[in-house]
Amino acid sequence: MSADVGLFKRGMRQLAGGVTLVTTFWQGERGGLTATAVCSVSAEPPQLLACVNKTASAHPLILASGIFCINLLGTQHIKLCGRFSGQDGTDGDARFEDGVWRSLKTGAPVLPDALASFDCQTVRQVDVGTHTIFVGAIVDVAVAGGEPLVHADGGFLTGLHKTAF
Amino acid sequence: MSADVGLFKRGMRQLAGGVTLVTTFWQGERGGLTATAVCSVSAEPPQLLACVNKTASAHPLILASGIFCINLLGTQHIKLCGRFSGQDGTDGDARFEDGVWRSLKTGAPVLPDALASFDCQTVRQVDVGTHTIFVGAIVDVAVAGGEPLVHADGGFLTGLHKTAF
Repeated sequence: MSADVGLFKRGMRQLAGGVTLVTTFWQGERGGLTATAVCSVSAEPPQLLACVNKTASAHPLILASGIFCINLLGTQHIKLCGRFSGQDGTDGDARFEDGVWRSLKTGAPVLPDALASFDCQTVRQVDVGTHTIFVGAIVDVAVAGGEPLVHADGGFLTGLHKTAF
Repeated sequence: MSADVGLFKRGMRQLAGGVTLVTTFWQGERGGLTATAVCSVSAEPPQLLACVNKTASAHPLILASGIFCINLLGTQHIKLCGRFSGQDGTDGDARFEDGVWRSLKTGAPVLPDALASFDCQTVRQVDVGTHTIFVGAIVDVAVAGGEPLVHADGGFLTGLHKTAF
């Protein structure tokens, strides 16, 4: 009674979402991936979650370290978005080589000009088949602001204008 | 060692996201809420999740029924978005009175002109303090397409132009 996978994928393309880089650090090695399956969980205590495919190179590092940082990308980060989704063939620590990175409390890589970065300790991990849902308690936050990189329908949405809520 | 709540909220405002209505149906009563904390979990099997505040009027109905539908809103749905977030004072079944609704397999209300609607059975619910994460197995999907309603930084992002990925 499960829905058709093709139809599901076609439907999910309609879900617009901010693009993020999920990063981690374990035993001297940095790992990271581009992710849109990220959302707020609760404000008190501050928590959010990321759904990470078990085949992602960073998945075992997030599992082992128990820490991750979610960096919200801006429109200036299209190249990084491609790199961290494997489009230029780099993987693992090499993905971090070009840029300038810093860290907050956990040691996970923080992109200095991310719109916001949420430094997290894993408090819950839920195995859901091909993916793991990592729920993170946010131990530190950096906010720089900017124009969000928004993904929908197989492309990026640009030329955004904000209207009142 | 938790992050400051104010700073977390300021950071989370930077996370752009498609706006959805999460709906349910239990013992003759419809319930629903506006939600942006929705994301894809896995494609095989097709699953997604929604984080729902326990104080939402629809929360007990989703718990009791074990079903929900996630309707992705388009730019034509700003009024519905406000209604389902309680801005016009209506609650419970009354939120559905103006519109035309249909259903797919579970019986949860489906918005006919939603960009896409995902009809779900709850397969996992994770208690995370103030919220519950509902993981849904998608049993049916309807796709109409359109221009997504995207929320960020306390407003809506409009005038979207798609560029190649």
